[in-house]
Amino acid sequence: MAREFALIARILAARSVVPDDVLVDAGDDCAVLAGGALAVGNDLSVEGVHFRRSWLSEAEIGFRAATAALSDLAAMAAEPSGVLLALCLGPALGEEEALAVAGGVIDAAERVGAGLLGGDLSRGGVLALDVVAIGRCPAPVRRAGARRGDELWVTGRLGGAAAAVREWERGAAPSPAARSAFAAPTARVQEAAWLAARGLANALIDLSDGLSSDGGHVAEASGVAITLDAAAIPVDEEAGATLESALHGGEDYELLIAAAPDGMAEAAGEFSQRFGVELTRVGVVRAGAGVYLRGADGRELPLRRGGFDHLEGTSA
Amino acid sequence: MAREFALIARILAARSVVPDDVLVDAGDDCAVLAGGALAVGNDLSVEGVHFRRSWLSEAEIGFRAATAALSDLAAMAAEPSGVLLALCLGPALGEEEALAVAGGVIDAAERVGAGLLGGDLSRGGVLALDVVAIGRCPAPVRRAGARRGDELWVTGRLGGAAAAVREWERGAAPSPAARSAFAAPTARVQEAAWLAARGLANALIDLSDGLSSDGGHVAEASGVAITLDAAAIPVDEEAGATLESALHGGEDYELLIAAAPDGMAEAAGEFSQRFGVELTRVGVVRAGAGVYLRGADGRELPLRRGGFDHLEGTSA
Repeated sequence: MAREFALIARILAARSVVPDDVLVDAGDDCAVLAGGALAVGNDLSVEGVHFRRSWLSEAEIGFRAATAALSDLAAMAAEPSGVLLALCLGPALGEEEALAVAGGVIDAAERVGAGLLGGDLSRGGVLALDVVAIGRCPAPVRRAGARRGDELWVTGRLGGAAAAVREWERGAAPSPAARSAFAAPTARVQEAAWLAARGLANALIDLSDGLSSDGGHVAEASGVAITLDAAAIPVDEEAGATLESALHGGEDYELLIAAAPDGMAEAAGEFSQRFGVELTRVGVVRAGAGVYLRGADGRELPLRRGGFDHLEGTSA
Repeated sequence: MAREFALIARILAARSVVPDDVLVDAGDDCAVLAGGALAVGNDLSVEGVHFRRSWLSEAEIGFRAATAALSDLAAMAAEPSGVLLALCLGPALGEEEALAVAGGVIDAAERVGAGLLGGDLSRGGVLALDVVAIGRCPAPVRRAGARRGDELWVTGRLGGAAAAVREWERGAAPSPAARSAFAAPTARVQEAAWLAARGLANALIDLSDGLSSDGGHVAEASGVAITLDAAAIPVDEEAGATLESALHGGEDYELLIAAAPDGMAEAAGEFSQRFGVELTRVGVVRAGAGVYLRGADGRELPLRRGGFDHLEGTSA
């Protein structure tokens, strides 16, 4: 993980032009331009890297890729307008399969009020798709807003997607709950907008890399340390997740929110009722740097960033 | 080609949501949203489909992919703000190669005043990259604006990229001119903006699929027929292009413009002087449907759309 981020930093350091209408630059979940009129994020999914054909139907491949891109908008509290799809069809994939992939993309987009705006189609040796999500973002909630004394909250339950991958990788079939966590995640767009509209989110990120890694992004961007409470993490036990997969498994696409202590606890009940999703306090923001885990004995240990490493292609 | 477009039409027919702030929808070169505040296009390049590793350096792979995406902005007369890069590194590609690909993307973007805004990095079995180009587009020039009686003009010389591919595919080395046409094309962003600002372009498209195919897009979107004059096509002879590759070879990224007869001929001289690029009258717009080629004998024959077929993976 560290290698991936170091490389992105080296890439960005090579730039000499940063356009002057850019409100939020690289290093957050989306680029935000034109005074917030537009937020743009994209997600590239390649067969054999981000999924295997045998794990998912074509519609699920499209749905999941679109959700990943739309989740980047949620992470800025942006309102999705539309998506673009660039689809490279692998061998032995015909028109019906292409329509099924696109149908999954359309389904994910329409669930959050967005439409398919266009795209690009080609054929090659591998199934690959890039989904670009475009939205309006007049008041972006960035990673950098966490303040000392804030509480950390997460939506939903964690580790289910990693539990599914673990089962597939050992040749077993994941439980329906685990399979669904991987194949049909929800982009928390409405949830993020609701929290942002109430001023409850000082910082926001989506859990694409995993709680330890994404928590680290918030800590680094905000110049703070965060401590997670092991006993509080909402492990997706129904999906067979463990504390390990809940901490380090990526691709759950839930939200991590840094919020002032007052207000969030009161709002959590209404939030759960409205969205049918739990909101759980998982830790605190404090002075310092890094991510720590407080165990049952009250001791805090530095938490290795262990989420899925897209550069290594292995789960930690 | 026809199959690809029919499939895109089927995909788009599956939608039920088209966001209400969309100014230009799928079927043009870019989506344009928020009253023209933002135009967004993307281009997916996959090793073995859109290029071979042995043909290009890593920097050229990045440069070419970014140019293809920026050329979509040029085709709307949009002003680029920035690009996003999603990069999937193939096997045996290390940090230096990733930096070289990104460096090529940055180079292409900075040539047209845009910057790299962010992106996504992963590793897999194949080198794949998607470049999203984002720009401002207060007055989009669409494909649909060609009028009966308009003249058709193209920038630059055509067929060079296809000539390079032809040489590589028969195991030979392309000439420097052909190689450069394929590896280092120019996104005609400034040229398109200049033409649009003078009201000279009734319709505009970039030649990514080839003159016959892209001419067909303009004819279809505008509800007109177009006739190309075989003797007038600016064949890139220095690159070893033939009339065939100039008509059907894609990926030259030059512009095809439909312009009222008065004005363009006068502007052509200033255009060439300013941009160092020829502007050539290649045909006319007339009532009817389809694309026709007028030969030396004055006879007009229907022109088969023969550009690179990304669904078949073969050149016609």
